Amino acid sequence: MTKLFTKLHMAHKPAGALSCEGSQNHKEVKITVFDYHEKEFIEELVPTVEACAPFRDKASVTWINIDGLHSADVLESLSKAYQLHHLVIEDVLNVNERPKMESFDGYLYITARMLTYNNAKEAIEEEQVSMILGERFLITFQAEKEGDVFDVIRDRIRNNRGRIRKMGADYLTYSLLDAIVDHYFLILEKLGEKIVAVEEELTASPTPETLKAINKIKHHLVFLRKSIWPLRELVSAVIKTESPLISESAQVYFKDVYDHTIQTIDTIEAFRDTVTGMLDIYLSSVSYRLNEIMKVLTMIATIFMPLTFIVGIYGMNFNTASPLNMPELNWPFGYVLVLGMMVIVFAGMMIFFRRKKWF
Amino acid sequence: MTKLFTKLHMAHKPAGALSCEGSQNHKEVKITVFDYHEKEFIEELVPTVEACAPFRDKASVTWINIDGLHSADVLESLSKAYQLHHLVIEDVLNVNERPKMESFDGYLYITARMLTYNNAKEAIEEEQVSMILGERFLITFQAEKEGDVFDVIRDRIRNNRGRIRKMGADYLTYSLLDAIVDHYFLILEKLGEKIVAVEEELTASPTPETLKAINKIKHHLVFLRKSIWPLRELVSAVIKTESPLISESAQVYFKDVYDHTIQTIDTIEAFRDTVTGMLDIYLSSVSYRLNEIMKVLTMIATIFMPLTFIVGIYGMNFNTASPLNMPELNWPFGYVLVLGMMVIVFAGMMIFFRRKKWF
Amino acid sequence: MTKLFTKLHMAHKPAGALSCEGSQNHKEVKITVFDYHEKEFIEELVPTVEACAPFRDKASVTWINIDGLHSADVLESLSKAYQLHHLVIEDVLNVNERPKMESFDGYLYITARMLTYNNAKEAIEEEQVSMILGERFLITFQAEKEGDVFDVIRDRIRNNRGRIRKMGADYLTYSLLDAIVDHYFLILEKLGEKIVAVEEELTASPTPETLKAINKIKHHLVFLRKSIWPLRELVSAVIKTESPLISESAQVYFKDVYDHTIQTIDTIEAFRDTVTGMLDIYLSSVSYRLNEIMKVLTMIATIFMPLTFIVGIYGMNFNTASPLNMPELNWPFGYVLVLGMMVIVFAGMMIFFRRKKWF
Amino acid sequence: MTKLFTKLHMAHKPAGALSCEGSQNHKEVKITVFDYHEKEFIEELVPTVEACAPFRDKASVTWINIDGLHSADVLESLSKAYQLHHLVIEDVLNVNERPKMESFDGYLYITARMLTYNNAKEAIEEEQVSMILGERFLITFQAEKEGDVFDVIRDRIRNNRGRIRKMGADYLTYSLLDAIVDHYFLILEKLGEKIVAVEEELTASPTPETLKAINKIKHHLVFLRKSIWPLRELVSAVIKTESPLISESAQVYFKDVYDHTIQTIDTIEAFRDTVTGMLDIYLSSVSYRLNEIMKVLTMIATIFMPLTFIVGIYGMNFNTASPLNMPELNWPFGYVLVLGMMVIVFAGMMIFFRRKKWF
Amino acid sequence: MTKLFTKLHMAHKPAGALSCEGSQNHKEVKITVFDYHEKEFIEELVPTVEACAPFRDKASVTWINIDGLHSADVLESLSKAYQLHHLVIEDVLNVNERPKMESFDGYLYITARMLTYNNAKEAIEEEQVSMILGERFLITFQAEKEGDVFDVIRDRIRNNRGRIRKMGADYLTYSLLDAIVDHYFLILEKLGEKIVAVEEELTASPTPETLKAINKIKHHLVFLRKSIWPLRELVSAVIKTESPLISESAQVYFKDVYDHTIQTIDTIEAFRDTVTGMLDIYLSSVSYRLNEIMKVLTMIATIFMPLTFIVGIYGMNFNTASPLNMPELNWPFGYVLVLGMMVIVFAGMMIFFRRKKWF
Repeated sequence: MTKLFTKLHMAHKPAGALSCEGSQNHKEVKITVFDYHEKEFIEELVPTVEACAPFRDKASVTWINIDGLHSADVLESLSKAYQLHHLVIEDVLNVNERPKMESFDGYLYITARMLTYNNAKEAIEEEQVSMILGERFLITFQAEKEGDVFDVIRDRIRNNRGRIRKMGADYLTYSLLDAIVDHYFLILEKLGEKIVAVEEELTASPTPETLKAINKIKHHLVFLRKSIWPLRELVSAVIKTESPLISESAQVYFKDVYDHTIQTIDTIEAFRDTVTGMLDIYLSSVSYRLNEIMKVLTMIATIFMPLTFIVGIYGMNFNTASPLNMPELNWPFGYVLVLGMMVIVFAGMMIFFRRKKWF
Repeated sequence: MTKLFTKLHMAHKPAGALSCEGSQNHKEVKITVFDYHEKEFIEELVPTVEACAPFRDKASVTWINIDGLHSADVLESLSKAYQLHHLVIEDVLNVNERPKMESFDGYLYITARMLTYNNAKEAIEEEQVSMILGERFLITFQAEKEGDVFDVIRDRIRNNRGRIRKMGADYLTYSLLDAIVDHYFLILEKLGEKIVAVEEELTASPTPETLKAINKIKHHLVFLRKSIWPLRELVSAVIKTESPLISESAQVYFKDVYDHTIQTIDTIEAFRDTVTGMLDIYLSSVSYRLNEIMKVLTMIATIFMPLTFIVGIYGMNFNTASPLNMPELNWPFGYVLVLGMMVIVFAGMMIFFRRKKWF
Repeated sequence: MTKLFTKLHMAHKPAGALSCEGSQNHKEVKITVFDYHEKEFIEELVPTVEACAPFRDKASVTWINIDGLHSADVLESLSKAYQLHHLVIEDVLNVNERPKMESFDGYLYITARMLTYNNAKEAIEEEQVSMILGERFLITFQAEKEGDVFDVIRDRIRNNRGRIRKMGADYLTYSLLDAIVDHYFLILEKLGEKIVAVEEELTASPTPETLKAINKIKHHLVFLRKSIWPLRELVSAVIKTESPLISESAQVYFKDVYDHTIQTIDTIEAFRDTVTGMLDIYLSSVSYRLNEIMKVLTMIATIFMPLTFIVGIYGMNFNTASPLNMPELNWPFGYVLVLGMMVIVFAGMMIFFRRKKWF
Repeated sequence: MTKLFTKLHMAHKPAGALSCEGSQNHKEVKITVFDYHEKEFIEELVPTVEACAPFRDKASVTWINIDGLHSADVLESLSKAYQLHHLVIEDVLNVNERPKMESFDGYLYITARMLTYNNAKEAIEEEQVSMILGERFLITFQAEKEGDVFDVIRDRIRNNRGRIRKMGADYLTYSLLDAIVDHYFLILEKLGEKIVAVEEELTASPTPETLKAINKIKHHLVFLRKSIWPLRELVSAVIKTESPLISESAQVYFKDVYDHTIQTIDTIEAFRDTVTGMLDIYLSSVSYRLNEIMKVLTMIATIFMPLTFIVGIYGMNFNTASPLNMPELNWPFGYVLVLGMMVIVFAGMMIFFRRKKWF
Repeated sequence: MTKLFTKLHMAHKPAGALSCEGSQNHKEVKITVFDYHEKEFIEELVPTVEACAPFRDKASVTWINIDGLHSADVLESLSKAYQLHHLVIEDVLNVNERPKMESFDGYLYITARMLTYNNAKEAIEEEQVSMILGERFLITFQAEKEGDVFDVIRDRIRNNRGRIRKMGADYLTYSLLDAIVDHYFLILEKLGEKIVAVEEELTASPTPETLKAINKIKHHLVFLRKSIWPLRELVSAVIKTESPLISESAQVYFKDVYDHTIQTIDTIEAFRDTVTGMLDIYLSSVSYRLNEIMKVLTMIATIFMPLTFIVGIYGMNFNTASPLNMPELNWPFGYVLVLGMMVIVFAGMMIFFRRKKWF
């Protein structure tokens, strides 16, 4: 809940000034450049955007990753160097954009949400990743500095593993999106574990805590769903785009990512069905236990009320001088007869409950 | 509820006569003119529509804002001056129109609903805003006089902040729609706060009041949804229109508003899911508390009924002259034995409840 | 329920013979003619279809309204005079048609359902209206004689109010459809009133009667929805038709009706959401009251069972000759001590309930 | 349930051999031929398919109806005589096909499900009808021999009623489909009656039997829906087909059938809503009765527990020799005072219940 | 649940290296070749992919089935021999692909899920089948070695039954897909049996076990649905493809498979409706039994509480020396009168319960 709320809180500001919204930690901007082709690769930490200029004219693929969005200078010089539309810069700065792809002259603008599962907080954390894909270059923006899900890709570039060094910037874009979608699967795996745990709890002894756990999972699923659907649209838009920036050979890979988003959605829907089933089980087990409790109460009351009544009768103080007033009290076997009567009542009740299958 | 009902109540009247429906406070009509280009701007309060005429021929952008709709004269002269279709005037007067865009010769007609959250009444208030966008002019109509959500825009024009003074009437239209959608976010923020509050109440001690609060939030969400969906269609229609009144450079901005409406809808749907989950928690917590109550009752009854039965036995008045009639009463340790028996019964019950995990 | 059932009951008959289905009161057919243009108008009650012939060749608009469908003669002569397809005549006679528009050579066939709210019976009543729109003429058929929702239109023709006398038969068609949709709003208003009333009942003291009232409203909404959706399709079909019978200037008006049908649908959906919420409140208030009842029972039992047990003990008849047998009975302060003990038990229970927040 | 299951059980077999699946009664195949044009008609029971050959070349319409599918010979000779695709023959033999239309060279293949309500078994019975519509001929296949819903059509042909003798084989196809859809209405009528009956039961005294009745109706509706949706698609496909076998004049009639299928679907949906409402009423009436039962219990317990406690006090055996031990017992008005006290307690309880509106 | 989770667990790995994911048993790869035309057929177990080469140039249809995916060598040589895209090989290796069809130069890639019901484990087992359909050849890949659902097809090839030997590789593809869909029906049949069993249990005596059985069926239906929907899309894509690899005559057969997938979906939806109904019955039967239990309790309490109170009165020890103190005790008929009074109270209660229809 708090997450949704926080998100809204920062969603909008009067347009105009360039300043990052939503980013709370004001550390420095960190610009990393990867420049590679099949034979060579350069990995560099550059101080300013201007330092990236030499890579522009080379035939190699250049990946500029910008961590931290709080320096307006960096973005402005970038905007000039690459002739970016000011709306793109604004979208990059607004860290609560809905995932989407937009086509501009000379570049594509893509924004997606990178999800990671925080084990300590038992929460899904999200961070916006914006990408600007041009001819032979890709610029990525991340709001927060600490880590991302792209180390796998960096390793592949460094060690020339897989196809990445042989392909263009579009393949790099695919690789990043694929890494993002892969993390959705990891989160679903976590939720899967939680569902198994809650299911066991449900079978053993459900408490209101169980219900809260079920609702938390449901909440996470809603959150995931809210992220994955626009991502699916985004990838679909990349596939359908006629931009020359996406080569035909790369499109096959984007179709692969698309299949993965569909698979994620399928799994989320199946999980939702499971969670709904768990809710039904919880509610009916509460009802069932009530029945069990009431059976105990009813059996006790049904057995002891008549018996207490009987002993009450013989506790009455009628004057036994009159032969009509409780002559039983003076019979020599009176007590034994009453005890016997009570045993019969008790046995009758037991047979009644057995027939009703109450125990 | 009352809002929906009121809305219906005024929704229709026999067509023909020009008179404002739905507006209850009969104050004067207030006409404000903003005329601006990059270098200059004029802000003027004009007494009549005719006074706006001089602005027509200027190359600058003219924004005529009309507060209050109860003067047929104003609208009729406006209709003549700008050659408006009489259906447009009727729609402007009917303050319960569904948000829509319609294209006419020489102008676009747009009607939207401006929502604000009234903290005092804890209610969402709505007001219809109609716009007529022509070449280099925009006429806006508001039913009520007191305030709107456009002061931000006015300030930007006055202080030449952002791009507004450099752009045309279409950009002004975008700015107004954007301001309206921004207020949807503010309302969602309020609802988010309320949801957090109710969630805390649910955890602490839910009462029927909690249920009413949940239903109120649900009601607000239904209301918002009813407003935002046609707004989304409207913006989509503006983007798809081939009218020359919407320049290509402005269309990018309308796409931005469109993204925001989609984001609003996503958040509303996520909130609805949350609210449904809260309802489940409420209902199951009521059931759960019933179980707790019944456990207390059953434990008390199960412990004391057998005990009361036992003491009842020894309250019977059988004549102990017969050696078969309650000889226990005359045993020197009879009382102690009975007390001991009752302690054993009590202990047995306690073990039974422990095993059932009732406490 | 009965309405749906009745409807089905008459829905079908072997095709072939011309005879009205569904109409129960066999009164006479009543044919009214309105013939008007901007300057003049004629209102006439004609005895036969043939009497309408002179109006055919005039340049004015002719509106022939036929009340009552039980005369095959009338329809046959009409069919001949206006060259109508026999399927159209069959559809006119079958008073349970789904609202639709069909295009034929030289005329459009439109059938809609006119709904009115019967205050006495607290029921929605429906009547089929079929229209045949040709060049400069409109023929309308109504199954029942007593009244319709078109008097407003007749008055406008008579008094030359609004645009109606200046426009063609297509505008007349629009006016009639508009009058029909307006009555949907009136019914929704009634339902809105009922919803407010039931909501108050829900807050005060819900009974099974309240549930029935909720279900009745739900039923009415289902009924309305079943009528308005095909009506929306019908109007949409009229707008999209390329028939020359619908002039371009009239199409703007049909778009207006279309907007109203959409608005009706929106309101019905919002009402349905409200009614669903009311059902939840009802069900949970029943559960809540059960909790309250059980609390009372549990408190009474929990207080008095231990107390009754205590007084039971001292009602036992052990022989106090033995000093171990209930020596308390012979203590001078025994009674006072027991009373004190019971006060302590009572106070302890009260503190327990207070802590559980039961009162 | 059993029906769905049975259906599945026979749904598939290894393709290849011609043999009827699903047909259980192995009676003889019965071939009936109707050959008619406007002036004349022939009705004949022929022994073999070959006997139909003479009708092929005549200009009249030929309707060959084949009852019983268990003779491979018949179908093979038919397949040869009319050059049918072997897949068509396989589909005809598989009596559990989904309703559909398929276009082949020279003929259309249509398969639909004929539903009838069996009053004795209170069940819906279904039978597959396959049709092969060629130029001037229609072949229909029915799995079971005993009766169908087409006697109305046969009578019309025999007595030259309606248009059927004047029209082609396409009109005959329409007539048969129309007769099938008409029977859906009859079944809905039956279900409507059942709904009315169950509603009355619900108001009077709902039992678990009522719930079973509700579920049975729901089940029937699911079954109907599963049949009518593909039928709707089928008719829609017939309307949209560009096959010359469906003349333009016949298409108007198929549109009529289409309208009827839509109307059936509307009614089914409305019934489903009603049934859902009935379920809500059932469940809440069970809860409500529980409340009523608990009120009785609570009132009895709340009245008699305190009273029993009071009389218990004065049943204690304290030694009244001590003036502090129960002096009341020796007061001359003690008994009267205690009775009075109990009346006051009783009256107090009654006022309490009245205030809570428990009776 | 575990299944969904396991599936996720293996869904993704860093792309690049060829190695099978998800396959746990590392047995040898088994390559089987069927080469057939109308006259002849060869069935051979070949050791390497290269051994298949001679079949390539023959005019006959070649079916290469590869069981077990853990040999990278096999796949690499295959990839070379048939010029397969490396993404196809990766998809084949990833045994958790969503069913889909993809068109490549010279071949179609199809992946589907083969479901079988494991009676021992009461679980649905799934295995991925990938197919590569080229001109005159079909290569199929199966992850696990033990058995598949294609033995029917192999028998038909061996014995030249049906059309299979006369048709091309596209017909073979159809036959395999058809065999897969046929197994869906078998699973649905199993589920149908289980539903019948659970329904009987519901009527007899529902326990929490019944609820678990209902949820298990629901879970299986969700699982089936997740498999059949993409299969439907796959078959639809095959029908719509314009690839020359699917001949026109084969397309008719794929339409047949398509119809079967639709029929499967219809049945799944109908089963889901049934299962939802069963859940309602379960929940309401739990409520109903609670009512029955509470009735017993209330009747017992309502009868014995007043009676116990009465006998309590006459157990009081008031000093009967005072004539006002319980004179009844000394009446000669006192006891009989009290017994009579209690009989009257008892009878009154019985009449009260009868009227309330409690027994």
